[in-house]
Amino acid sequence: MEVRSVQVGNVTIGGGKGVLIAGPCSVESLEMLRTIAAAAVKSGVSILRGGSFKPRTSPYSFQGLGVEGLHLLDRVRREFSIPVVSEVMAVDQIDPSLGCVDMIQVGARNMHNFPLLSALGRVDKPVLLKRGFMATIEEWLMAAEYIVKEGNDRVVLCERGIRTFEPWTRNTLDISAVPLARMLGGYPVIVDPSHASGRRDILEPLALAGLAAGADGIMLEVHPDPDKALSDGGQSLSIPELAQLAGRLLRRMAQGDNES
Amino acid sequence: MEVRSVQVGNVTIGGGKGVLIAGPCSVESLEMLRTIAAAAVKSGVSILRGGSFKPRTSPYSFQGLGVEGLHLLDRVRREFSIPVVSEVMAVDQIDPSLGCVDMIQVGARNMHNFPLLSALGRVDKPVLLKRGFMATIEEWLMAAEYIVKEGNDRVVLCERGIRTFEPWTRNTLDISAVPLARMLGGYPVIVDPSHASGRRDILEPLALAGLAAGADGIMLEVHPDPDKALSDGGQSLSIPELAQLAGRLLRRMAQGDNES
Amino acid sequence: MEVRSVQVGNVTIGGGKGVLIAGPCSVESLEMLRTIAAAAVKSGVSILRGGSFKPRTSPYSFQGLGVEGLHLLDRVRREFSIPVVSEVMAVDQIDPSLGCVDMIQVGARNMHNFPLLSALGRVDKPVLLKRGFMATIEEWLMAAEYIVKEGNDRVVLCERGIRTFEPWTRNTLDISAVPLARMLGGYPVIVDPSHASGRRDILEPLALAGLAAGADGIMLEVHPDPDKALSDGGQSLSIPELAQLAGRLLRRMAQGDNES
Amino acid sequence: MEVRSVQVGNVTIGGGKGVLIAGPCSVESLEMLRTIAAAAVKSGVSILRGGSFKPRTSPYSFQGLGVEGLHLLDRVRREFSIPVVSEVMAVDQIDPSLGCVDMIQVGARNMHNFPLLSALGRVDKPVLLKRGFMATIEEWLMAAEYIVKEGNDRVVLCERGIRTFEPWTRNTLDISAVPLARMLGGYPVIVDPSHASGRRDILEPLALAGLAAGADGIMLEVHPDPDKALSDGGQSLSIPELAQLAGRLLRRMAQGDNES
Repeated sequence: MEVRSVQVGNVTIGGGKGVLIAGPCSVESLEMLRTIAAAAVKSGVSILRGGSFKPRTSPYSFQGLGVEGLHLLDRVRREFSIPVVSEVMAVDQIDPSLGCVDMIQVGARNMHNFPLLSALGRVDKPVLLKRGFMATIEEWLMAAEYIVKEGNDRVVLCERGIRTFEPWTRNTLDISAVPLARMLGGYPVIVDPSHASGRRDILEPLALAGLAAGADGIMLEVHPDPDKALSDGGQSLSIPELAQLAGRLLRRMAQGDNES
Repeated sequence: MEVRSVQVGNVTIGGGKGVLIAGPCSVESLEMLRTIAAAAVKSGVSILRGGSFKPRTSPYSFQGLGVEGLHLLDRVRREFSIPVVSEVMAVDQIDPSLGCVDMIQVGARNMHNFPLLSALGRVDKPVLLKRGFMATIEEWLMAAEYIVKEGNDRVVLCERGIRTFEPWTRNTLDISAVPLARMLGGYPVIVDPSHASGRRDILEPLALAGLAAGADGIMLEVHPDPDKALSDGGQSLSIPELAQLAGRLLRRMAQGDNES
Repeated sequence: MEVRSVQVGNVTIGGGKGVLIAGPCSVESLEMLRTIAAAAVKSGVSILRGGSFKPRTSPYSFQGLGVEGLHLLDRVRREFSIPVVSEVMAVDQIDPSLGCVDMIQVGARNMHNFPLLSALGRVDKPVLLKRGFMATIEEWLMAAEYIVKEGNDRVVLCERGIRTFEPWTRNTLDISAVPLARMLGGYPVIVDPSHASGRRDILEPLALAGLAAGADGIMLEVHPDPDKALSDGGQSLSIPELAQLAGRLLRRMAQGDNES
Repeated sequence: MEVRSVQVGNVTIGGGKGVLIAGPCSVESLEMLRTIAAAAVKSGVSILRGGSFKPRTSPYSFQGLGVEGLHLLDRVRREFSIPVVSEVMAVDQIDPSLGCVDMIQVGARNMHNFPLLSALGRVDKPVLLKRGFMATIEEWLMAAEYIVKEGNDRVVLCERGIRTFEPWTRNTLDISAVPLARMLGGYPVIVDPSHASGRRDILEPLALAGLAAGADGIMLEVHPDPDKALSDGGQSLSIPELAQLAGRLLRRMAQGDNES
């Protein structure tokens, strides 16, 4: 099956040219978002990510800035002319997101939230559908089908690791899912090595492996001060680390273009 | 930790006396629901279950009768004087359910749907929280905490199997979760051998094992004609099978009472 | 399929009467083995277990007493008139075991050690075949078939937990495997809650669940001073705890007999 | 940790230059082995693999040619001047292998066969240690330590997939294990996409991903007539497919060299 290409603002995902997506786990403040956006643009990142509605295991953890975070994302995407992707966890979060972001993310914990998927099928906005960490590839493609069936075929998939018995990584990046989901589903696939591994020290080999397996892009978490992040600090890159890794990945992506 | 007891209509879950919950996977028609309710009451079942909003892997599978199904449940629970439990998949399905059912179920696929959990914490109705097939026991207890934190502590947990590599059962019933969730969470725990195994031929040993491990009740799927069920037929009991199994389980529950 | 019964010394496994097996993870000394054997016999345990050849993840952990341990087992089984089961890890450990023990155990890590299985098919000694923590039920039955094919049909299976994502238990006791292996393989099945859970605090509900699911016996680890055990101390019962738990299990087994 | 290099005949694994290993799952005949060896050498393959002792789930499946297979491997490696790797499943298979092969493989099912590992620590022959399909990375490194502790530090690891819930691949290639085992163990790591996936259609992306993640080589299964293979036919390449894939992998390996 041929892989469709999906337009996100001025960026094409799935058009043969790899795409870098980066940003903080959670939007924490305007200042923080600006710092990251500036660094991201400078490093060659094409799309900014940042969470406003955060699904957290414990109700006592930081839950995100909510609608306020969306407004910060909107402001920064205009200031830096970079498209933005952000997660929604419920149907009533879609409407406030539409005017503020360029792409809506469905997180791993909501891959089976069928009413949410159907509602996203009825809006005019591309969707980044993360694989549930315990979902088979077939269930993932079926979840995409819930969106497409309602009329929105601008779906991009994101492989972010599955739950296994291995404790040295937070999840296990299922690299085989990249060619299989592209080949059998026809969707572009982004690889998220930050969530898959939960460890900074192997982000580069995992990102390179993702590209080698055919991924249409890589999504990375970055934070101005990872040790003080309100969520997911352990796996976030610092800004200098992002610049360095983005440089290497862009070089490899450029090589890939020349080859094919 | 002592296990709290939760009142569902005239039935107490967690009070030391085991409870049988049974019913069809999906509500299909009034006639079908009546047939099952009559058989259930006669067999000693205390609570009737039945799905109106059905989470299905494929968007092309039967999705449930929706609000119409709720009205059928309401009618039948009055006719047979038996409390009813039914699943909601989204916040906007809670309101129509409140007047029609005695307990609201959160399904395995929605255990991480935090907005839904929080909304259920703000209603005056007991909640049956199924364990996600991908969720650790700790995450399950944290999900319950999302409900309790908002003010509703009438939470009952349901162990329904986790996803493993074993292919001879649909999921793997995690029997250890029964004592652990009771001991460390203080919630009553129901065991659902139908979904855990996906096979009729081992429902009885699994249900007996659940009770022996301390479960406060057993939930079973039943259908007047399992081979023609619109969903989950393969694991549903026929009505005569339900009568027979319920009889055995009730006898065992009665023995358990005498012992303690 | 009818479950065959297997004779181990003067004890019958699979004959309808539940059997208790207990003993230390590793044989550490004659004195320790005697203390346990005396307590075991007094508590109603039918078979003594104890490891002489110990499979340990690290080459730097205690590896067992080897042949010396076998001699201690032989001495104690005669002194206390109780049959003994002990593990072999290699073909050349079978011969020295034959004169010292009444049943030979294949551990979880060796369930796929086909030359070992075939060799055990050619000796006149019952075999206790533990399920690999990575093995499907079908692979387990196939491993048993390696033994039976060579002429030794005195095989007893032991479910000891499979590896999953759940971290609160060392492994996940697959309770469904008990009825499935008995029904589809025709072998008696022992449940080992000590290895399955790795925690003392849920041994009783797991053992009771095992019996309720149809297990032909329960195997428990015991140590005179669990906190000083050379291996697996965290999951071992103390001697008073064994006496108490064995008493409860024997009562339940006796009830089971009366019922059927 | 720096990755050691291991010499296998005239080939260095772990020296910075990627290595291709290929051959049939099982040695079936001299003619078949010659055909493959000729094609392998012509395609740039550095080491020939082929199984003589085959661990098979069922005792009724083809079990390999045994010692006869070793003699065929010996004959062909001399004829084609290519080093050979073959698996042993038991201590008594080591001696006959020593004169016939250049490297001894421990298969996934024997990764926890500690007596076998220790015995291989006492021979003068490099060892290819496959990861158990349910072993953590830490257990894998500990298994290597069993060999090294006895004096043989010529250990190469092979990642061949772990068992998960995903059914579209036979196992899940754990790509994160490649950098982690190299970095934390200091051993060269080979990736085996044939066993990991069990499907021909994604061998290329998986092999490329392995190299991108830092693997020191790739191992592939090949058969003159995959549909008639006595084992593992479904995942084997035909000879023309091997030539094509080897060509691409060697080009990518050469690029990798130029870069660093």
